Amino acid sequence: MNVEKKFLQAINDFNLISENEKILIAYSTGVDSSVLTYLLLKFKNYLKIKEIALAYLNHKLRKEAEEEEIFTKEVAEKFGIKAFTKQVNIKEIAKKEKKSVEQVGREERYKFFNEILKKEDFDKIATGHHLSDLAETMTLWFIQGNKKGIKGFKPKEKNIIRPLYYLTKEEIYNYAKEKQIEYKEDITNYSVDFKRNKVRHEIIPKLKEINPSFENSALIMSYFFNLDEDYFNKKIENFDLLVDFIELNQIKEKAILYRLIDKWIYEKIGCKLSYKTLKSIIDLVETGGTKKVKICNNYYLIKEYDRLYLNLEKSDKTTYFEYTVKPNEKIYLKEMDKILEIFKLSNPNLEDLKNEKEMVCFDIDSKDIEFKIRQRKKGDRFKPFGSSWKKLKDVMIDLKIPADMRDNIPLLTFKDKILWIIGYKRSDLYPINENSKNVICFKLKEV
Amino acid sequence: MNVEKKFLQAINDFNLISENEKILIAYSTGVDSSVLTYLLLKFKNYLKIKEIALAYLNHKLRKEAEEEEIFTKEVAEKFGIKAFTKQVNIKEIAKKEKKSVEQVGREERYKFFNEILKKEDFDKIATGHHLSDLAETMTLWFIQGNKKGIKGFKPKEKNIIRPLYYLTKEEIYNYAKEKQIEYKEDITNYSVDFKRNKVRHEIIPKLKEINPSFENSALIMSYFFNLDEDYFNKKIENFDLLVDFIELNQIKEKAILYRLIDKWIYEKIGCKLSYKTLKSIIDLVETGGTKKVKICNNYYLIKEYDRLYLNLEKSDKTTYFEYTVKPNEKIYLKEMDKILEIFKLSNPNLEDLKNEKEMVCFDIDSKDIEFKIRQRKKGDRFKPFGSSWKKLKDVMIDLKIPADMRDNIPLLTFKDKILWIIGYKRSDLYPINENSKNVICFKLKEV
Repeated sequence: MNVEKKFLQAINDFNLISENEKILIAYSTGVDSSVLTYLLLKFKNYLKIKEIALAYLNHKLRKEAEEEEIFTKEVAEKFGIKAFTKQVNIKEIAKKEKKSVEQVGREERYKFFNEILKKEDFDKIATGHHLSDLAETMTLWFIQGNKKGIKGFKPKEKNIIRPLYYLTKEEIYNYAKEKQIEYKEDITNYSVDFKRNKVRHEIIPKLKEINPSFENSALIMSYFFNLDEDYFNKKIENFDLLVDFIELNQIKEKAILYRLIDKWIYEKIGCKLSYKTLKSIIDLVETGGTKKVKICNNYYLIKEYDRLYLNLEKSDKTTYFEYTVKPNEKIYLKEMDKILEIFKLSNPNLEDLKNEKEMVCFDIDSKDIEFKIRQRKKGDRFKPFGSSWKKLKDVMIDLKIPADMRDNIPLLTFKDKILWIIGYKRSDLYPINENSKNVICFKLKEV
Repeated sequence: MNVEKKFLQAINDFNLISENEKILIAYSTGVDSSVLTYLLLKFKNYLKIKEIALAYLNHKLRKEAEEEEIFTKEVAEKFGIKAFTKQVNIKEIAKKEKKSVEQVGREERYKFFNEILKKEDFDKIATGHHLSDLAETMTLWFIQGNKKGIKGFKPKEKNIIRPLYYLTKEEIYNYAKEKQIEYKEDITNYSVDFKRNKVRHEIIPKLKEINPSFENSALIMSYFFNLDEDYFNKKIENFDLLVDFIELNQIKEKAILYRLIDKWIYEKIGCKLSYKTLKSIIDLVETGGTKKVKICNNYYLIKEYDRLYLNLEKSDKTTYFEYTVKPNEKIYLKEMDKILEIFKLSNPNLEDLKNEKEMVCFDIDSKDIEFKIRQRKKGDRFKPFGSSWKKLKDVMIDLKIPADMRDNIPLLTFKDKILWIIGYKRSDLYPINENSKNVICFKLKEV
């Protein structure tokens, strides 16, 4: 099947577009969204689309963004359609909201798209996600043991549609070439996010030596995994998530129970459980008597007879913790149920390196250095950016960390000075600047 | 946790061994089953095992098997335990039963083990399968899009137990070295089965660059996938599989329906559906009116109103089929819902190459050759091994191929002579022998 047939097939198979709809394209200037634009315009009449427009959000993260914004307007003018553009300082918001740049970028993008939908009366957002993206996403989650993610994304999720769902990157490239579609080469936004690139360039080609139609196999797997997940989601959708305990004798099936516990804990205390923790909870359920499992944010899940309930434990002052770590190591922080990666970075991109909640970097360039990760101690002091030294306790109060959690927050230290209240705030020691060549970075990851 | 702890942990977690049991080890002389033997003997008293013995089946496929059989007896003598050994000509059985050597090997091995269990009153069969095997198996199925296989094997299946379930190959090797455990290096039995080797040596190391604890992630994924599958299996276990049709309005949930259809069709006509076919069946269900999908063995699945039923279609004489294929190509044989791979092999291992049901090889060594795969034609003749030329029709009758299926059996031909009744019988044209250097092989695979 050729590109245009597959494009129309996906729209037909998943009812992506109905008559008389206004479609907003999540435009990035890259080949995917450029081919998407071309195809939607080519089949505008055939599909009875009322209007097509481009939306481009300038994240103010890369210098190329200015050119991309202009390019977007040029493309729209060329095709006689509207272009909505906006500039948002993602970095600043990420800093303020203590979120990752990637997360804020995604959130702001969809906020922007949905604003246009509302204001300009558009019906759907069309994105350039394609079959190779799907296969990559599924592979990445499989590698990381994230069972929930293996199913990949769907061709239609709420008002988001993905008409390139049946097309591989190769087919999209070749089509762009054949039709002389103009686009800008994708620039990888986050140089330190190396996993997807490794999957794309090193792993998928190896998988295809075993199964040349891996992308199509992924497509079919995704379909069936989604059937299973939809089934289970429906099974638990009516469960009251605000209950204070789960009655185990009411939910005998473990496949239902683990999903329910996962959803319930997220609702109650905002933790996304790792599958490892989730497994230890299910193990707990199978044992007799009263047992407990530490989950996150200093909460315990307690099993007493036929009930599971949550309990915020007072931290035990006697269990002082301290670990030593070096660059190129990883360490599991059981206090947070997260993994901390330590790595060296050469010629870092300053823009990407300032999200202090999940990743921090320091201009420390010496050999054989080591860092300590430890519990707070009496007399600890901390130096925030642009401020003088403060009592650590006062900083923690400013950060709204509850008193009974403070002993469980790991601190990154170097020469016994606190560099980072891990997951919360970095100090202004060893800051990176334009001249930084070799920096050491610390990144928090899900287990 | 060290090796011995993990070994005991698995036995404890999954109740692999109960007091006073007799354990038969599926012994191969390789490092896995040798370490397994060592550990079971070391903890024989602690685990209150009544008796431990080795079982080795000599497949008569490789010259090393004789030495392995002797080695098994020596090991048993050294440890003062019994060794059960037997010789079975797997090749011959495979030929007779028209199955693959791998399949017959597996079947005969477990037949042998179960005979001993019965005769000598043993309780369990212990195999050397370990955590790296699990991760490999899951990865291999993921790559091939076999959703059902992704869950991997369980630590306990009926009377088979896998006490090395928590141990990686590396841990097993290191332990063997540390304890100076004797074993014979594994020899890959089937040189042409390259997939598992590729996964083991090229793919898993790449995955571990992203997730160094991939094996442990696989372990946890396997646990949850098995919970899901166990749930669904239970949901459909009471369904009467001998019914002539499925009432669609009685099974509204697609996650249940696709598993039920899969099981039903296997029960009714013995076909293992590919996920691709299964998807087209589910698509069928969603459309209105009467529709049909070709499945296998010349059967159609028909959807009429709210019913699904099977129908054996008379073959349509007008749809003569013929394809051209060359070495290093693959072709999808829609008549069988299978993939045929064509490849050249240098210095083939004769022993492995004589299973005529799934793979055949020919001593054809020329360049730019091509083969035709086609429907039978009037006047077709076939030359079985050690026989004169016969009418193809008579050969098909001997092979018990039903009359209305004969037009749908693809024939592999070269210079218009039939080389292979695909999936059934090869001719004695271009046989391979000790002097064959370059041969061309054809292998049937699942989609």
